[in-house]
Amino acid sequence: MKAKTEYLFMNLPQRRGFVNITREVEKVVKASGVQEGMVLVNAMHISASVFINDDESGLHHDYDVWLEKLAPHAPTSQYRHNDTGEDNADAHLKRQIMGREVVVAVTEGKLDFGPWEQIFYGEFDGRRKKRVLIKVIGE
Amino acid sequence: MKAKTEYLFMNLPQRRGFVNITREVEKVVKASGVQEGMVLVNAMHISASVFINDDESGLHHDYDVWLEKLAPHAPTSQYRHNDTGEDNADAHLKRQIMGREVVVAVTEGKLDFGPWEQIFYGEFDGRRKKRVLIKVIGE
Amino acid sequence: MKAKTEYLFMNLPQRRGFVNITREVEKVVKASGVQEGMVLVNAMHISASVFINDDESGLHHDYDVWLEKLAPHAPTSQYRHNDTGEDNADAHLKRQIMGREVVVAVTEGKLDFGPWEQIFYGEFDGRRKKRVLIKVIGE
Repeated sequence: MKAKTEYLFMNLPQRRGFVNITREVEKVVKASGVQEGMVLVNAMHISASVFINDDESGLHHDYDVWLEKLAPHAPTSQYRHNDTGEDNADAHLKRQIMGREVVVAVTEGKLDFGPWEQIFYGEFDGRRKKRVLIKVIGE
Repeated sequence: MKAKTEYLFMNLPQRRGFVNITREVEKVVKASGVQEGMVLVNAMHISASVFINDDESGLHHDYDVWLEKLAPHAPTSQYRHNDTGEDNADAHLKRQIMGREVVVAVTEGKLDFGPWEQIFYGEFDGRRKKRVLIKVIGE
Repeated sequence: MKAKTEYLFMNLPQRRGFVNITREVEKVVKASGVQEGMVLVNAMHISASVFINDDESGLHHDYDVWLEKLAPHAPTSQYRHNDTGEDNADAHLKRQIMGREVVVAVTEGKLDFGPWEQIFYGEFDGRRKKRVLIKVIGE
């Protein structure tokens, strides 16, 4: 069995945003030499997500509006977590909707994707350094 | 390490619906010859889900009503994604709640399941051909 | 390839609650002897979750309040699933938000975690015996 681990550093200038990381994952899969296996891609921070969906800016806008409706940032006093001095309780909630991780099949050395699948990093409490883990296993 | 990949074709006649695909996944696991490992099952389209829950029609009705409340289809003009000519923005939102994929343990050659676990395909924008990927790895 | 499977028994005295199971997962990873691989941790029951987030009691309170708002327990008659004699339809909905499973990278024999990542069992219909599955594969 082969295994390869890489860490991707993220530091978004705004509180919330989505970044397409598909190319970075493809590079790690290629470098791993794995032909048949799986790749795990996960946020290493608990107020961020990794998810698969469409690379369409209108949809990303819709996600942002929708998540803000389901788990509003303000008033920050509505969340007990924010009594700790944080103001990011909503980010921990939004991340549960969008998910922590994806697992993608590697077939014949490539991400085994449908026509529109792209991997995104979703940031809900940015303006600080965070990491994404990419782990490939297989043969 | 052994690996086996199969694609399941779906084409639901209605916009939304749930299909039990547990038997199909079991067949692929058996055919793979894997005794100890994992199986990944994921929607290959970004307006559909694969998830594990109960095979109970009342619950599926509840999911449908609940998802429509959290991410309504109409008015379609409320979503910027639909400015692209699509009317399926809500499907991309619903799929995030229900998830893209499941990973299931394979133990002694079988899906290592609790008493009520069943695997479902969840369609949120049907009436077109879609695929589910089943990938088994292990030994 | 090495593989190790363990089952963790849960029986919460209340309907809803969160239990940190990180130490138990670490023990199974250590006992497996796997240096490079992945560990799957999933609820084996469909009204419970396994998820990764912060071990902070204020946040857990916020999750509980938020999930109750998104998928209220009462009135139980609002859910068709409860016509079967159950009163736990809301638990099946809450579990979809929080997720069934996590997959964590194992690197150099340890859970490859960010600074705050902890693994939790989320119970939404307790006062009965349930199980969590821990499966490690790798080398």
